[in-house]
Amino acid sequence: MRVGLLTGGGDVPGLNAAIRAVVKRGEGEYGHSIIGFRNGWRGVVDGDIVPLSRNHIRNVLPVGGTLLGTARFHPHASDGGLDAVLATLEAERIEALICIGGDGTLHAASKVAEAGVKIVAIPKTIDNDVWGTDRSIGFDTAVGIATEAIDRVHTTAESHNRVMIVEVMGRSAGWIAVTAGIAGGAEVVLAPEEPFDIDKVIKFLKHRHRAHANFSIVVVAEGAVPAEGTSMSYETPVGQFGEIVAGAITARVKAEIEQRTGFDTRVTVLGHVQRGGSPVPADRILGSRFGVAAIDAISRGETDVMTALRGDEVVLVPLQEIAGKVKRVPSELLQVVRALA
Amino acid sequence: MRVGLLTGGGDVPGLNAAIRAVVKRGEGEYGHSIIGFRNGWRGVVDGDIVPLSRNHIRNVLPVGGTLLGTARFHPHASDGGLDAVLATLEAERIEALICIGGDGTLHAASKVAEAGVKIVAIPKTIDNDVWGTDRSIGFDTAVGIATEAIDRVHTTAESHNRVMIVEVMGRSAGWIAVTAGIAGGAEVVLAPEEPFDIDKVIKFLKHRHRAHANFSIVVVAEGAVPAEGTSMSYETPVGQFGEIVAGAITARVKAEIEQRTGFDTRVTVLGHVQRGGSPVPADRILGSRFGVAAIDAISRGETDVMTALRGDEVVLVPLQEIAGKVKRVPSELLQVVRALA
Amino acid sequence: MRVGLLTGGGDVPGLNAAIRAVVKRGEGEYGHSIIGFRNGWRGVVDGDIVPLSRNHIRNVLPVGGTLLGTARFHPHASDGGLDAVLATLEAERIEALICIGGDGTLHAASKVAEAGVKIVAIPKTIDNDVWGTDRSIGFDTAVGIATEAIDRVHTTAESHNRVMIVEVMGRSAGWIAVTAGIAGGAEVVLAPEEPFDIDKVIKFLKHRHRAHANFSIVVVAEGAVPAEGTSMSYETPVGQFGEIVAGAITARVKAEIEQRTGFDTRVTVLGHVQRGGSPVPADRILGSRFGVAAIDAISRGETDVMTALRGDEVVLVPLQEIAGKVKRVPSELLQVVRALA
Amino acid sequence: MRVGLLTGGGDVPGLNAAIRAVVKRGEGEYGHSIIGFRNGWRGVVDGDIVPLSRNHIRNVLPVGGTLLGTARFHPHASDGGLDAVLATLEAERIEALICIGGDGTLHAASKVAEAGVKIVAIPKTIDNDVWGTDRSIGFDTAVGIATEAIDRVHTTAESHNRVMIVEVMGRSAGWIAVTAGIAGGAEVVLAPEEPFDIDKVIKFLKHRHRAHANFSIVVVAEGAVPAEGTSMSYETPVGQFGEIVAGAITARVKAEIEQRTGFDTRVTVLGHVQRGGSPVPADRILGSRFGVAAIDAISRGETDVMTALRGDEVVLVPLQEIAGKVKRVPSELLQVVRALA
Repeated sequence: MRVGLLTGGGDVPGLNAAIRAVVKRGEGEYGHSIIGFRNGWRGVVDGDIVPLSRNHIRNVLPVGGTLLGTARFHPHASDGGLDAVLATLEAERIEALICIGGDGTLHAASKVAEAGVKIVAIPKTIDNDVWGTDRSIGFDTAVGIATEAIDRVHTTAESHNRVMIVEVMGRSAGWIAVTAGIAGGAEVVLAPEEPFDIDKVIKFLKHRHRAHANFSIVVVAEGAVPAEGTSMSYETPVGQFGEIVAGAITARVKAEIEQRTGFDTRVTVLGHVQRGGSPVPADRILGSRFGVAAIDAISRGETDVMTALRGDEVVLVPLQEIAGKVKRVPSELLQVVRALA
Repeated sequence: MRVGLLTGGGDVPGLNAAIRAVVKRGEGEYGHSIIGFRNGWRGVVDGDIVPLSRNHIRNVLPVGGTLLGTARFHPHASDGGLDAVLATLEAERIEALICIGGDGTLHAASKVAEAGVKIVAIPKTIDNDVWGTDRSIGFDTAVGIATEAIDRVHTTAESHNRVMIVEVMGRSAGWIAVTAGIAGGAEVVLAPEEPFDIDKVIKFLKHRHRAHANFSIVVVAEGAVPAEGTSMSYETPVGQFGEIVAGAITARVKAEIEQRTGFDTRVTVLGHVQRGGSPVPADRILGSRFGVAAIDAISRGETDVMTALRGDEVVLVPLQEIAGKVKRVPSELLQVVRALA
Repeated sequence: MRVGLLTGGGDVPGLNAAIRAVVKRGEGEYGHSIIGFRNGWRGVVDGDIVPLSRNHIRNVLPVGGTLLGTARFHPHASDGGLDAVLATLEAERIEALICIGGDGTLHAASKVAEAGVKIVAIPKTIDNDVWGTDRSIGFDTAVGIATEAIDRVHTTAESHNRVMIVEVMGRSAGWIAVTAGIAGGAEVVLAPEEPFDIDKVIKFLKHRHRAHANFSIVVVAEGAVPAEGTSMSYETPVGQFGEIVAGAITARVKAEIEQRTGFDTRVTVLGHVQRGGSPVPADRILGSRFGVAAIDAISRGETDVMTALRGDEVVLVPLQEIAGKVKRVPSELLQVVRALA
Repeated sequence: MRVGLLTGGGDVPGLNAAIRAVVKRGEGEYGHSIIGFRNGWRGVVDGDIVPLSRNHIRNVLPVGGTLLGTARFHPHASDGGLDAVLATLEAERIEALICIGGDGTLHAASKVAEAGVKIVAIPKTIDNDVWGTDRSIGFDTAVGIATEAIDRVHTTAESHNRVMIVEVMGRSAGWIAVTAGIAGGAEVVLAPEEPFDIDKVIKFLKHRHRAHANFSIVVVAEGAVPAEGTSMSYETPVGQFGEIVAGAITARVKAEIEQRTGFDTRVTVLGHVQRGGSPVPADRILGSRFGVAAIDAISRGETDVMTALRGDEVVLVPLQEIAGKVKRVPSELLQVVRALA
């Protein structure tokens, strides 16, 4: 069997673990040929392939990024893109395709599946907002990096009596902000799930600095927004690739806090470091399990599904169940943040 | 309300996160008095208490160990122990008790609960074998440490063409061995769940070194045992505290491999480093969530339960459901090890 | 003997190691009383003291920041500041003063020394630009953090075919940029020591992307500037505290690269994370050695000196030799960067 | 020019940085051909070569071990070994040879140099005991690993009121023990430089546990020995490769402490993890600088020297000056240990 494999969207740590698992299991157990496409869907459109063997995957387990390369490119959004995809798959005699990606890639995957291609998807995103799975590849490493950053600014905040604001990724869901906020002991976490009232934030900080400690850590997801009808007006600015402009919300929050409290307030925008580097064990294991599950599913003819983690188990979820949904942080976790502030 | 709190059994990273959560939530939300007992059940027997306030828990989130101290001590196993526990709890007017511990501590907790004390338990063990919860506090940090060690010996194995054996903890269940083995890319993992056949291990290593690579990583849980009827006889040696003697099984496996393959074979016994140091984010978060859940349960009168993680949710499980059960590594995970060897 | 102790300027990892060493050695070997001042020179002006004993320094070795607090405050620059310092020292019967700080603090120290106070200085700065010593406290930890960040963006750069620019600290000297650049394998490093020609940078990147690899890492010190007479004009912008505005030079370099090469170019400004968190061993050791050397010097009557590392030895350097000098990166190191690009 | 390159002795982190620097600088600046020999001197004897180009050294900077492989093999110690070396070098038209190694490899290098081969040596050893240089490649990473281990057992020691003994490498010199001991805040450090008196160790521990704290960390170099005429007799046991048997001295010290104090005492033998994994920045930088300096020296005809770090400078030291000497820990550092106990 000839099985195609691509990684799409932003790179995250743990992709190589999944690629390695697909190749080792596919070749070793089933004798499949695994055909990699370079740079995500663009490689499928362009017919840019690399047949993968055990040699390609030596020592890649602890390495971040993706050995296949990746790109933010959606075939169904470009003229003739879908046709080019089908043409390449036919020319290469690809019988099934494994797509590792976030919601953009998964959306493209469902479009390609509708055109008759057999697909198994593997979820990856540091935002952890893919519906249907407890975890996506890359999230745990990002939380590790964000927590380390919070630990670091913590000692500075305390030594200098400052408010330190740390901006982390999270466009539609605040998973990194909330979990790293809990792990780092942040006093305030602003997440997209709960539009915030800046008046309450400032009241809380003033009270804390008066009563308990003269420093604070505030963690802000890039997609955090003020609640309607509150005193701070804000429109999320969007950049040339449709991404949220880094540092925008944080700069506004800093200005409000500094002006209204007089506290020395500093900002750290974590940015790209959140998605790179060696994956933590959880992402290596998740990538490995998802890779094995994906090739196993294809081999027994189960397609148009996504691999998913539920508790301690890996399961398969129909692709169409996922489309258009976002997994948000549950209220229990948001409450833990408040309980420990 | 006066709520007692103790940590028992071996120390693990993340205990302080749980203590901090109990104190912050208990004091801040409910106005409870949190009374800590020093050194586990021994402190209850001896009446060795420390009333906990916000001052005790400043900056403890990233710190390993337990600020309360701990001990391997079982009140029901010592003469008059249970009576002493009840006497102290009455003298201190403790209305409910939060016990953070592994199976020894939880077993003691169920005995004390049977005597009429209201108890909420929080599971901790780097072995991750407490039944009823996906994760126990300490496990994820241990996996991180074990994986880092495997990464380290990997480069030596490859540079010197060696077989490197790494022994990790895991008495009745091989959670650390299997997950760190997957994360570190081990070729062979020996876990208690599947008694091994040394002949097969040696055949596999010989084949690998002939066909693919001239080095290998073997991860062995301390509780691994040969299968009955296979060529290697072995009786797990037990030390003065009832613990498995460190390095015992690994020394035997090394001898077999070295003698029968001629490969240069070296051993690393990780030991105590697996249970110390700063907790990874997952353990800080789990400790924080369990601590909040425990004090919330007590405050609404729900006792004789254990906090548990199920997927993304924290739930409560009746204490009596847990007793005497061990959570073993599921076969899907064991299969991932083999798929990627 | 009553010995004063303060930490001034920006906080760095390793300060607590020095404080601990002064207290342990001062108390244990000599029976001195160590009197800490809170928040640097401000605490001396305000008479804000904390007598330090072994209890204050328990478990502080692995903790970043400074338990004494710190501030950017120069007594000689404020009206009556110097008099207030002398008044406090007399009131507290301080016989000698240990000042841990960077060039601001050391400059203040030399002014106070001129007024007759016995002083031993200990150099700290993540910039590593204090003259007279191979290393200052905090530098090695900062290099570790910057290198880890470069490692992380490396995998993203390669996966996405991007130019990644990382801005690190270094106002007058490029120690972090150069050493982390070498350690992280950066293709281009821009340091204050060698004003750059943007035309050459762009020519180099174009050549590399054509001939060798389609990604690059560029490390920029905040104090980097274009050479006079080259095509890029730039005035280093300065903020309200006299600090260089974070991200300023990097934004300009990014714009130039992107416009003139068309390469997808992204920026990471590391900022405050570089100066926080648990110190690496080198900074714990340096802090410990400097602390012991400082109190030893005072105890044998050798003052108005700074502790310094020279090779493997700790020596004492007269304070007046240091004033007004900046230790820059030697040309051999700058050449290693170019050799390995 | 054809330049040979080998790595000999035990592998350490940072070797790949040196190999990469030799290749990049040798090829890029001088147009040399760099011929690698596999597995140290054995590869020279066997003529096992690999011509190195930029492709071999991509992404190796953060990777531990050595891409050339290594072996503990001394050509002058085997019959006809030296002749075989000379024959290979002539057959491959090697004009000069770069040898990266510890004292065994350097000793072989000086023998080969005496036979007329032009040699530049680069020192590597986690023991840091090569004479003539402040640092050897691998040492700083080993100190990082040992310090992390001490940090980890520290929390366990404190939580359980134990004496924790950590054995680290260091046969003739106690560099790792002393520096990691200082960095980790050990109470007692036993190093080969100062044979110990077990009576004094036990007296110190008893005093400490009575007066200050009921736990202690003891760091022991594998080469530590009791002083003559003291109460503990001990002969260092040596294994089949001439190495000190791991855990031997520590087991004895543990037994003495436990029997004579009654303190619960546990042992951790770090072993192989000390020499593997990703190099810390200091080792990547040292390897890079030494690699550049070695190829520069060869290119200008300066041979029979070793690259060395002196303070902030890289210098060249005549090979014959080094032979037979061991660099020991200076007394100032040993005194810092005692000052901070």
